[in-house]
Amino acid sequence: MTGTGTASVALIGTGLIGGSWVLALRQAGCLRGPVSGCGRSVANLETARERGIIDSATTDPREAVRGADLVILAVPLGATGPLLETIRDVLEPHAVITDVGSAKQTVVADARQALGEGAARFVPGHPIAGTEKTGAAAAFPELFRGRQVILTPGDDTAEDAVAQVQSLWEAAGARVVRMSAAHHDEVLAATSHLPHMLAYSLVDTLSRWSDRDEVFAYAAGGFRDFTRIASSDPEMWRDICLANGDALVDALDRYMADLAELREAVRAGDGARLEAVFGHARLTRERFVAMLES
Amino acid sequence: MTGTGTASVALIGTGLIGGSWVLALRQAGCLRGPVSGCGRSVANLETARERGIIDSATTDPREAVRGADLVILAVPLGATGPLLETIRDVLEPHAVITDVGSAKQTVVADARQALGEGAARFVPGHPIAGTEKTGAAAAFPELFRGRQVILTPGDDTAEDAVAQVQSLWEAAGARVVRMSAAHHDEVLAATSHLPHMLAYSLVDTLSRWSDRDEVFAYAAGGFRDFTRIASSDPEMWRDICLANGDALVDALDRYMADLAELREAVRAGDGARLEAVFGHARLTRERFVAMLES
Repeated sequence: MTGTGTASVALIGTGLIGGSWVLALRQAGCLRGPVSGCGRSVANLETARERGIIDSATTDPREAVRGADLVILAVPLGATGPLLETIRDVLEPHAVITDVGSAKQTVVADARQALGEGAARFVPGHPIAGTEKTGAAAAFPELFRGRQVILTPGDDTAEDAVAQVQSLWEAAGARVVRMSAAHHDEVLAATSHLPHMLAYSLVDTLSRWSDRDEVFAYAAGGFRDFTRIASSDPEMWRDICLANGDALVDALDRYMADLAELREAVRAGDGARLEAVFGHARLTRERFVAMLES
Repeated sequence: MTGTGTASVALIGTGLIGGSWVLALRQAGCLRGPVSGCGRSVANLETARERGIIDSATTDPREAVRGADLVILAVPLGATGPLLETIRDVLEPHAVITDVGSAKQTVVADARQALGEGAARFVPGHPIAGTEKTGAAAAFPELFRGRQVILTPGDDTAEDAVAQVQSLWEAAGARVVRMSAAHHDEVLAATSHLPHMLAYSLVDTLSRWSDRDEVFAYAAGGFRDFTRIASSDPEMWRDICLANGDALVDALDRYMADLAELREAVRAGDGARLEAVFGHARLTRERFVAMLES
């Protein structure tokens, strides 16, 4: 990287998140050089090129990364380690590498394992944004406006690399916060990974109901909202569960204990208890929504 | 009721559902007489009058019902039995009574208990529509357009009463289906009552997380959608749980067993199993959404 703006970018994974970030950076005038896109699906790469996300396309990560000043990994978490192993000996020494994965401790470990001391130029990141849609076709530059991005650099991460990634997220309209990878994983298990499990599990349960078709026939808008996140990408969520399993199991255990208590209140016909839980939950959520909109 | 349209209406409960139905009936030109509104909150009654939902307001159900050709009960389920006891001796013999409650077996039992043979003119109903908002201020006439309304008349319900209620829902733009009260309660436990429990319980769990404020600070739009139904009226949902407890406990048990299996797959790092459940859920939900939009 020289002067202002980032010279040349390798975008590994041209989906919703990576595609939207690059579109936002282009819109903000932050990219002075070409974007080389890499992915498994030729059709999706073609879409990314047609939509002006990438300038060139390849299915070979080493080809994409060669000469790049900035390498963005926007792939399912399980692909991070193998990808870093694949590209490490073609990375420019000055290159900054960052990712967008929804769990951070495994990513940090993967970077240390694959890059050794080179991990100092790896900046682990996670934008708290997304939709249930996937692929380059779903990307749009406003995705991160007003959203938060969490960076989890370690003590050994180069500050200039962190600052560069931070400024690129801010250029996309995001607010950047830093925290430890462990803390990130615990917080996200509660607010994101747990709700996804609950939604996937509900749709799964209902799909095996004896009168399934009728059950869905009488579901309404509330159900559609509630289960929206169950349309998220299964491979990505498989990897998140595998990467953040400990924190997720802990969150599930806490939730299941509380749900068992609520079930007992329903069984016992304990109206006062039910109303107290529902009232408290409503109040809590309203505070959250007010905060989100402020 | 004489000629076309309904002559005079008593609306007991001037909230989102009752208020929206009356607004829709007015818009459709179905009301030839005045609407007498009854509620517990004078402020909400005043809002209902200002918004043109009701013509007169009272906190006395007997006053509202006297002389009415159609009596709409749009109140929390627990209020149905006491209300019917209160109004039974001032009901016009020809009057049609209907309700909008989210559970139907207890309503049917309440009507039989309070009205005896007069229960023949009671038409149990449930519109599958709503928002998390409450009160007359939230009412709007388009709420039921394209939505389904379930009627659960029994063998002893007068067909002319059912036909009248059906035509009034159709005038509001709804599609009407009939089924048994028991079947209604089983289906709705799965698609509506169960998701509400899960959302309330999630917000409740997170509200007691040690770093609660931070947890909510990093929740995003997916979480907001997922928990929207946790902003629903606590008293109404207390009553639904009490009224449909058996079916709801059964649904909760099935769900909790499935969730425990998913938790075990996370704990064991069983990626193939996780991806299979997520993929199946996504496919099922996409079919459901396509059906909802068709």
